[in-house]
Amino acid sequence: MCMFSGADIASGPIWMEYIAFLKSMPAVNTQEETQRMTAVRKAYQKAIVTPTHHIEQLWRDYENFENSVSRQLAKGLLSEYQPKYNSARAVYRELKKYVDEIDWNMLAVPPTDSCKDQMQWVAWKRLLAFEKGNPQRIDSASNKRIIFSYEQCLMYLYHYPDIWYDYATWQAKSGSMDAAVKVFQRALKALPESEMLKYAYAELEESRGALQSAKKLYESLLGDAAETTALAHIQFIRFLRRNEGVEAARKYFLDARKSPSCTYHVYVAYALMAFCLDKDPKVAHNVFEAGLKQFMHEPVYILEYADFLSCLNDDRNIRALFERALSSLPQEESIEIWKRFTQFEKTYGDLASMLKVEQRRKEALSGTIEEGASALETSLLDLISRYSFKDLWPCSSKDLDHLSRQEWLSKNIGKKVDKSALSNGSAMTDKSTSAPSGVPTASLKVLRPDTSQMVIYDPRQHHGTSFCLSKNICL
Amino acid sequence: MCMFSGADIASGPIWMEYIAFLKSMPAVNTQEETQRMTAVRKAYQKAIVTPTHHIEQLWRDYENFENSVSRQLAKGLLSEYQPKYNSARAVYRELKKYVDEIDWNMLAVPPTDSCKDQMQWVAWKRLLAFEKGNPQRIDSASNKRIIFSYEQCLMYLYHYPDIWYDYATWQAKSGSMDAAVKVFQRALKALPESEMLKYAYAELEESRGALQSAKKLYESLLGDAAETTALAHIQFIRFLRRNEGVEAARKYFLDARKSPSCTYHVYVAYALMAFCLDKDPKVAHNVFEAGLKQFMHEPVYILEYADFLSCLNDDRNIRALFERALSSLPQEESIEIWKRFTQFEKTYGDLASMLKVEQRRKEALSGTIEEGASALETSLLDLISRYSFKDLWPCSSKDLDHLSRQEWLSKNIGKKVDKSALSNGSAMTDKSTSAPSGVPTASLKVLRPDTSQMVIYDPRQHHGTSFCLSKNICL
Repeated sequence: MCMFSGADIASGPIWMEYIAFLKSMPAVNTQEETQRMTAVRKAYQKAIVTPTHHIEQLWRDYENFENSVSRQLAKGLLSEYQPKYNSARAVYRELKKYVDEIDWNMLAVPPTDSCKDQMQWVAWKRLLAFEKGNPQRIDSASNKRIIFSYEQCLMYLYHYPDIWYDYATWQAKSGSMDAAVKVFQRALKALPESEMLKYAYAELEESRGALQSAKKLYESLLGDAAETTALAHIQFIRFLRRNEGVEAARKYFLDARKSPSCTYHVYVAYALMAFCLDKDPKVAHNVFEAGLKQFMHEPVYILEYADFLSCLNDDRNIRALFERALSSLPQEESIEIWKRFTQFEKTYGDLASMLKVEQRRKEALSGTIEEGASALETSLLDLISRYSFKDLWPCSSKDLDHLSRQEWLSKNIGKKVDKSALSNGSAMTDKSTSAPSGVPTASLKVLRPDTSQMVIYDPRQHHGTSFCLSKNICL
Repeated sequence: MCMFSGADIASGPIWMEYIAFLKSMPAVNTQEETQRMTAVRKAYQKAIVTPTHHIEQLWRDYENFENSVSRQLAKGLLSEYQPKYNSARAVYRELKKYVDEIDWNMLAVPPTDSCKDQMQWVAWKRLLAFEKGNPQRIDSASNKRIIFSYEQCLMYLYHYPDIWYDYATWQAKSGSMDAAVKVFQRALKALPESEMLKYAYAELEESRGALQSAKKLYESLLGDAAETTALAHIQFIRFLRRNEGVEAARKYFLDARKSPSCTYHVYVAYALMAFCLDKDPKVAHNVFEAGLKQFMHEPVYILEYADFLSCLNDDRNIRALFERALSSLPQEESIEIWKRFTQFEKTYGDLASMLKVEQRRKEALSGTIEEGASALETSLLDLISRYSFKDLWPCSSKDLDHLSRQEWLSKNIGKKVDKSALSNGSAMTDKSTSAPSGVPTASLKVLRPDTSQMVIYDPRQHHGTSFCLSKNICL
């Protein structure tokens, strides 16, 4: 199967055949007989410390062999090898559990989400982890066994980038940089489209100072203009900045700007590099301003620019930026900008400007899907948000839940309720499934709960096919 | 019932009795008879434009009355009042729908989450919205009708802060500031513990320049030292800053620091005020540094301080802050700090410092609940996170899902799986319920998906009572 197949758990018969072959060698004189006996003994002694299915039979064969050679010598030799054999047998029993989980008939197909594929992946990971734990406490042979396991694993999980990455990383950690590089080269033959493996390979090369090789990998990510991603531009600019300096990065950025794959991200990344690394807020500001000509229609770009201006504490320009963006963005794309504008006035404005921007926001967004017909109504939730700070609220989280639910009700009670919200009704009533833990529904710190998805909690409402509107249904 | 009960939809009998009473007045001469007739006509003319249950009967009575007085005059008067009556009757029919939803026997108890309570709230909101729409297009009487409806509503929803707030806000918008103030005063008698109503009342007073009254309200929030919240300190400092200037705010902050209710939030709020409003990064820095003596054990405070230093672009101090915090925080509280430290080096560091902090993080956190035994393994997900930028990833979101799932599997496969995760298995397989919309599971921008809550997706796995480990169950 492979360079070191004697390590395979199924290699017992091969060992046996090999020993039989050695035994059958012709020996014409005593010297040759002694040589043959020594060869057979050596083979047995290797076989009985290898965890194979036939380890017990091999031990018995070895016992018979030694006893047939010399009863006197046998005692010493067998008691010397007994503990090694015991240890190998214990390892075999453990290993067998992992091996039994593996489907040796599986085809090397790309990963799917099927339970079987995932369980096969788990089985291999456990086997590899077991081998990497060096269960037999042997120093010399251990790495060979691990390499053997990785190679065997890749015959099945050939299309799994994480196995290639683990293998290469393990090689690099064991000090075999060249072996690691070879693994990455094979990985890129197996998965030539994998960006992440290219970054991983480039990282290894950069870490060991092989900058030309790393650069070639980055260039291969940028090779085909049609398939280049904005991320590839950004990572290459960073690479240049790290290894060739500010000027090389600047030059590449100027080129990348003209590429069709240059999104606003590239401007943001370059501006932040200028600000954070070169400590040059002026250049950063110019980059953001230059990007605005092209990306005025991207709400996220506006928000990134506003974040940067917040760092400069430049409230006049933040206000001007929001006004510019709001005058050009369509209503449905300005929701986030209005949110941030409101937050901004909460921090930088006085009471009047705070109330004014909230009112303007309501007027501007009335009629969008998010806000209902009652959008112009002042709501107690707005007041609560005005007088909150970080995770502190001027009411209990119960109040907050209650008011959010009421706001949802008052917005949606007239509308036809989305059918999907109803059919999931029974699932949604179970609070534990409606939000992933770590995102407390009561905390409006980052996100307002998406109350449009909310369904009224009522434990009786288990087969909710009609919305609980009239009290007859409720009672 | 109340000052204006003639507006009540049930006031028909009262109008009828009133008219009967007027009719029964003794009249000794023609002049008195004419006076009586005029009074009866006036009463009828008011009654037939009031939407009551008896509006049709009252109209018939009025027709008979006019015809009995003078057939000739009747024609003109009735054709003058017919359209007004028609309009009132149409309004009555609409109004009746809203009124019928209201349970007039409900007790004025504090809001609960019961479906009935919520539906009563909705019914009242709809009735109020209908009245506020001024359906009869009458200018003079409309406000009286609205006030009547609010007063009636508050007899039932006496403990609902949002109704008080709506009422006061409506009064203020209609120009009756004094009436709005009176509503708030009554609201605070009804709900004396409601912080939000106090802020709302104070906001109204501040808006109209009644600063002394506003200040008193803020002071009432701070009155009882034992019950004062950190938020009350913060809002009072802001109020002082807005209305009495920097020095008054500073003075109060120095006092508040000594209060037992002063949490780290107060330091953060005051420092940000100094930075954003007074443009004084030096003071802000000093405040953060002073707070550190007291709040070194609060990871959130450390992160707020780091955010501030990021604005100053002061990477040397950010690094020093992280190191100081990590050397004193217990392992389980340092998870977020390590995350941010890693992100920080991604922005400010070179490749070596990036890899180093990630390694240190893994070593520091190995053994916490979040990270498993394999925490020290380099993972492809770490690489992906190193080479991502904002919402750009060096792989597809499908890859990301797949790898996250695998990471979860490799961490949890050995452990006993939480029973609750299993019993919810069928609900969790429906992707639409497992995360609220707006939080894309694939985006690791803010939060890593909490993979410890994840359950393997398998459409067949519908009555998941045992974890799908062996392939026999899977197939």
